[in-house]
Amino acid sequence: MKIREARESDLGTIARLIRALADYERLSDEVVLDSEVLRRHLFGPRPYAEVLIAEEVGEAVGFALFFHNFSTFLGRPGIYLEDLFVVPEERGKGIGKALLARLASVAVERDCGRLEWAVLDWNEPAIGFYRRLGARPNSEWTVYRLSGDALEQLGQA
Amino acid sequence: MKIREARESDLGTIARLIRALADYERLSDEVVLDSEVLRRHLFGPRPYAEVLIAEEVGEAVGFALFFHNFSTFLGRPGIYLEDLFVVPEERGKGIGKALLARLASVAVERDCGRLEWAVLDWNEPAIGFYRRLGARPNSEWTVYRLSGDALEQLGQA
Repeated sequence: MKIREARESDLGTIARLIRALADYERLSDEVVLDSEVLRRHLFGPRPYAEVLIAEEVGEAVGFALFFHNFSTFLGRPGIYLEDLFVVPEERGKGIGKALLARLASVAVERDCGRLEWAVLDWNEPAIGFYRRLGARPNSEWTVYRLSGDALEQLGQA
Repeated sequence: MKIREARESDLGTIARLIRALADYERLSDEVVLDSEVLRRHLFGPRPYAEVLIAEEVGEAVGFALFFHNFSTFLGRPGIYLEDLFVVPEERGKGIGKALLARLASVAVERDCGRLEWAVLDWNEPAIGFYRRLGARPNSEWTVYRLSGDALEQLGQA
């Protein structure tokens, strides 16, 4: 198994894996992915996120998409893992852990104080796995989101 | 009241406002801010976050620190507001809302689908304010964090 940085030619693979993840999370109806939009934002002049791909014999079997967040209390960046996914047939082989370990090593290398990610509260297997790695929940915080018309209206205020 | 982008010369002001915010959140013991580290990560060759400052008659009375996150389901970036703070003496004048409105307008301008931020669950006044703007909670998600020794250990795995 090999982990490598994604290239623009991986765009189709990334889109396919994102859809498979959404399916697993029972959130497929929220995916409005357009390949050209994804290409521009991942591989254009201003890339907004980075992608790692896990390969078995040249075939993509998982991915991690991440970006940098920032902790004002530490005064330094962190890594925020937006998506981590391993195709169902390849689970239980340590691929997810290898992707997380690579991210942890990138975090240390880039002077990041933290590696963070969000988990759906019903996803007990994932939560157990993360806790065993030493991750701790920020249970007292809730993320609020403004989007669509509410976002546009506030932007014009 | 004026909102402007922060410059490197605002570093002392930013650090002071971060400490005042931590104090309000009862989290002062978590602040390990070093000015040189903050300078490098906000105003160095690779800035990890952007800062807006709200001024009244040339004096800083509030700030917003944000960075770009990324939604794979939308295939585009969002804006994540890490810190929003208005000094206690200047509250109730619409400064917080003006900072949020500026961020919403930056989000729309930069093709971002979302503006997001986390709120401490006990902060009822803030939650009411955010809901009135049309923000909705992602209640079913919890953020997990790996830091310190656990992060380093996983990075060496």
